[in-house]
Amino acid sequence: MSQQTDTNRRVVLASRPHGAPTEANFRIEHQHVPVPAEGQVLLRTVWLSLDPYMRGRMSDAPSYVPPVAIDDVMGAGTVAIVEQSQHADYAPGDWVVSQSGWQDFALSNGKDLFKLSGPVLKHPSWALGMLGMTGFTAYMGLLDIGQPQAGETVVVAAATGAVGSIVGQIAKLKGCHVIGIAGGAEKCRYAEEVLGFDKCLDHHQDDLAEKLKRYCADGIDVYFENVGGKVFDAVLPLMNSKGRIPMCGLIASYNATGPSAGPDRLTPFQGAILRKRLRVQGFIITQDYAHRFEEFFRQMSQWVAEDRFVFREDVVDGLDNAPETFIGMLEGKNFGKVVIRVAADQPGEQK
Amino acid sequence: MSQQTDTNRRVVLASRPHGAPTEANFRIEHQHVPVPAEGQVLLRTVWLSLDPYMRGRMSDAPSYVPPVAIDDVMGAGTVAIVEQSQHADYAPGDWVVSQSGWQDFALSNGKDLFKLSGPVLKHPSWALGMLGMTGFTAYMGLLDIGQPQAGETVVVAAATGAVGSIVGQIAKLKGCHVIGIAGGAEKCRYAEEVLGFDKCLDHHQDDLAEKLKRYCADGIDVYFENVGGKVFDAVLPLMNSKGRIPMCGLIASYNATGPSAGPDRLTPFQGAILRKRLRVQGFIITQDYAHRFEEFFRQMSQWVAEDRFVFREDVVDGLDNAPETFIGMLEGKNFGKVVIRVAADQPGEQK
Repeated sequence: MSQQTDTNRRVVLASRPHGAPTEANFRIEHQHVPVPAEGQVLLRTVWLSLDPYMRGRMSDAPSYVPPVAIDDVMGAGTVAIVEQSQHADYAPGDWVVSQSGWQDFALSNGKDLFKLSGPVLKHPSWALGMLGMTGFTAYMGLLDIGQPQAGETVVVAAATGAVGSIVGQIAKLKGCHVIGIAGGAEKCRYAEEVLGFDKCLDHHQDDLAEKLKRYCADGIDVYFENVGGKVFDAVLPLMNSKGRIPMCGLIASYNATGPSAGPDRLTPFQGAILRKRLRVQGFIITQDYAHRFEEFFRQMSQWVAEDRFVFREDVVDGLDNAPETFIGMLEGKNFGKVVIRVAADQPGEQK
Repeated sequence: MSQQTDTNRRVVLASRPHGAPTEANFRIEHQHVPVPAEGQVLLRTVWLSLDPYMRGRMSDAPSYVPPVAIDDVMGAGTVAIVEQSQHADYAPGDWVVSQSGWQDFALSNGKDLFKLSGPVLKHPSWALGMLGMTGFTAYMGLLDIGQPQAGETVVVAAATGAVGSIVGQIAKLKGCHVIGIAGGAEKCRYAEEVLGFDKCLDHHQDDLAEKLKRYCADGIDVYFENVGGKVFDAVLPLMNSKGRIPMCGLIASYNATGPSAGPDRLTPFQGAILRKRLRVQGFIITQDYAHRFEEFFRQMSQWVAEDRFVFREDVVDGLDNAPETFIGMLEGKNFGKVVIRVAADQPGEQK
């Protein structure tokens, strides 16, 4: 089913996953389109962002954000059009970044909206990617925490993903030697030939550790951690003294149901942090850096205008396909930033 | 045997320990006293510092400092008197901090010496403790990496040790709520009654995690890590968002012979770093902060002059007792900063 004007499709959390989510954890409901009150706008979703962190919100384990409640709509960043407005700052037809979640329509009081204008409207979905949360994550994690210097070696996993691809390209702009890690030969080729990484290694190959050592002949100065798991095991022995590990995601463990068996890798990790004087720092972009969004947006917009960046989206049509697409993303099936095209509108079109 | 004027006793590394060091890993040799060449001074050791990091140098595993070679004298910071001088900047009778190691006499070209003068000469051994490397470690790790704010909760293990006791007292000066962890009721009582910690918990008790939770009712903002092991397991769940973990030692694992059994605690640790946006940073005081020693020395000297600090030394007489004392220190048998009184000289005495 495609987007209707009189029905709001909502993808709600039907049950909490144990391990990998399945389609049974989601349910699609149909409701009336809500009506904005004074001070509110009615938003119609055009683009929906799917991101790994949403797996955390499906669980009720203690976390940095409250979990999605059972029967509540799944949360998400979206690009939307203002359909009706009872808010002085917004007019019908305005394009905004919103937090509408996995649904066709949502109300907002305007406080969580970011109005889109200018060049970004050529590719509104980029406001969920390289000009939005994932680009912002890459930018701040790499530059503020990673602090790469020209000539240093930067390693990033999920190299063709929404965050990793931007991390690597910024690191190249800064004059670093950039090694990506990705799943499969096609992604690796893309990272080298299109994104311009110096090398990209396939984590499906058994000799990852060996090859990483070969291509990081001077060791690793910055490891941008957005994966965890066995990639980390290959990286740690190669970290240089005073290395930095910004950590924004651990997708490899999101579906874990409990601690894995031994040996215990904590003590060796602590030993490496101490001996190598590493800095390991977790961050949540919205909580740690919200005050620096404009700085990022201005700089990244300029780089984008100068054609310095390639940004690949994995576009899937139709809100109904969001659950299946999300499940596949956690398995690494996507190739680029995952966005759901909920409606086909483009800026400037009249409905 | 006590110190002689014509013989140099040297404690050398006889063999590398497997697990906990034993006395068989050390050997005491007797040599002629060396003669300084042009540009050198002859130093006579008065105080010898014993510190846990020396365990690392007894092994040949990759580390941040080269291992002590077999048959070489054990390295260490010392307080020494200049006996003979062929160096323009030093005269016989000068007191210096040197890196003479576990021996009575050593030569130096002056580059690794720090001349002692003024109030510190009232307690020259303090130049190895609260006014030396261990105090400097506490000061920089806590203030530069931990960045405690008034009202925050700071937890430090080995609370009565050379580093921990200073960490806690600086944190109290900064207006923090300070919880120590130490081995045994006597040390805990001392930390509370003499050092002025708000509470000190005994890690020999089974209910450490429970009690820590009770006394850190607002969570933990800074955990000064100098121990590792099970104390860390009790601390991690209590860390607050944006918490800081300066890491300068892991004495609990120094004698480990291999990775411990599972479950694997690495992934939960990474998860905590991410969710809580922790900053975990290892440091080696001499490598990371040498350029700030004067700042530390000036500030700490002032605090000491104002009687703001208590510093307990665990003084053992005689170089011959260094091996046994060192082995005991790794087991937590010491109570305060361990120093060996190699000779009984005091400043101002004539030999």
